[in-house]
Amino acid sequence: MKIGFAGIGIMGKSMSMNLLKSGYALTVWNRTPEKTEAVKDAGAEVAASLAQLADRSDVIITMLNDTPDVDEVILGKDGLATGLSPGKVVVDMSTISPDVTELLADRLGKMRCDMLDAPVSGGDVGARNGTLTIMVGGKRQVFEKILPVFRGMGKTMVHCGGHGDGQRVKMINQILCGLHAVALSEAFTLADRVGLDLEVVHKVVSSGAAGSWALDNYGPRLLKGDLSPGFKLGMQQKDLRIAHETIRQFEGEFSGTELAYRLFTRAKENGWGELGSHALIRLYEESRPQSC
Amino acid sequence: MKIGFAGIGIMGKSMSMNLLKSGYALTVWNRTPEKTEAVKDAGAEVAASLAQLADRSDVIITMLNDTPDVDEVILGKDGLATGLSPGKVVVDMSTISPDVTELLADRLGKMRCDMLDAPVSGGDVGARNGTLTIMVGGKRQVFEKILPVFRGMGKTMVHCGGHGDGQRVKMINQILCGLHAVALSEAFTLADRVGLDLEVVHKVVSSGAAGSWALDNYGPRLLKGDLSPGFKLGMQQKDLRIAHETIRQFEGEFSGTELAYRLFTRAKENGWGELGSHALIRLYEESRPQSC
Repeated sequence: MKIGFAGIGIMGKSMSMNLLKSGYALTVWNRTPEKTEAVKDAGAEVAASLAQLADRSDVIITMLNDTPDVDEVILGKDGLATGLSPGKVVVDMSTISPDVTELLADRLGKMRCDMLDAPVSGGDVGARNGTLTIMVGGKRQVFEKILPVFRGMGKTMVHCGGHGDGQRVKMINQILCGLHAVALSEAFTLADRVGLDLEVVHKVVSSGAAGSWALDNYGPRLLKGDLSPGFKLGMQQKDLRIAHETIRQFEGEFSGTELAYRLFTRAKENGWGELGSHALIRLYEESRPQSC
Repeated sequence: MKIGFAGIGIMGKSMSMNLLKSGYALTVWNRTPEKTEAVKDAGAEVAASLAQLADRSDVIITMLNDTPDVDEVILGKDGLATGLSPGKVVVDMSTISPDVTELLADRLGKMRCDMLDAPVSGGDVGARNGTLTIMVGGKRQVFEKILPVFRGMGKTMVHCGGHGDGQRVKMINQILCGLHAVALSEAFTLADRVGLDLEVVHKVVSSGAAGSWALDNYGPRLLKGDLSPGFKLGMQQKDLRIAHETIRQFEGEFSGTELAYRLFTRAKENGWGELGSHALIRLYEESRPQSC
């Protein structure tokens, strides 16, 4: 099975390196070709175009930033679709709109190509170590066909349902992550303002019913004043925007998620998108009265 | 060291039972005397009044619902203060206002009595098993003097700072718990509305960066439709009210905590205060349009 990989960013680079280690014949493409140097040195071919990538590969993975990027790379004027032929499989591992995912799967289906949505969690560390969790939407038999490829990049692969359902589970995941970041930011900020020892607070609250992965992993970084990513704030904002767009389709109230979306949007507009998602706490430090 | 214990509710009963098991001479008091039967049968004396409880004991523990209850039991017309003498120690293990705690400690100090605030986390299960986390504010030497008593009820005892700081750490803990409950409620409700399999969602999201104690412990109960406490929704609302009152003293914005307070207040007003705190999810089910 020959693999194509479009999008050699931080995540995509580690994931394609792991596919090479698993012995797959790999062709890569990136908008900025310079970023493919390391994977080329490790044995990958570099495609001159997306059409060439699609032509040379049985399975084409996309790992891009946002919904319009995936739409453009698959269906755009010089996109993958120009080189696809029946029987090929497109696996989108980006985190994008579940609804657009359904549309893309439909369009590819008309070309007799299969699609899976397969967003991941586990961040840069999980991508490097091949321990990603991969949430997959699409036909079960296609999921099973691609499973060996996923095993080269991840540890936990779950078939979540039909087209878009991998993205929907990821969206639920990101709602939890976003609100946990709000909780952590407010807890630490208020603890500091009432004069508590943050080391003591972190030790006490992380051990019990208030515990979370966010507290365990971002708490120590906040104590050191380390706001570097991990997972970028701008990406968390984008993921909450996808949730926001989904929520608008329902009449019900999801006020926590909407609040998290607004807070992350303000933080991104403040220029902190390239910091870690736990840099949300700066929003609270900023709101501190100047007199304090 | 003779111990007095005022407040034999669900928590207080288990805690006083554990003190008896540790070999302490124990006198108890409860507003509704019938609730003291089980601890009496296990070997405790029952005081006829708070004055008598204070008179007979070296250390008097209070485990009550809310700030006015503690104020009344300590300083009220027939309160503990009427039977206290210099050198005695009052240990309030209720979760109440940090500011009122400071005032109470000050008043008791003028009677040459020491006070500790020592709220707990770990719930009814922790109280029963003697595995509570105890967050202690007050003088360090008093904390060290009372430590053997705490060991009879808890596993992790942390001196958090001066008077009120035990309550402040508990408040931070409850902000995290409250917002994690909002996150869980919205995540599960939205997952259900977009048609996902909640068992799959729970399995995927709890294993990674979205994980939390709340998801691990309340997630399975929600999947079974079990809204029984655990920790009562009404108590979580009260704890968020304490946070809300503290936040009002600052100009900064804590919009997540304030939202959690409003949501829990609505849920309590709906009459769900005696259900588990994860019953917050009913607020979201209620907001579902009738047509669905």
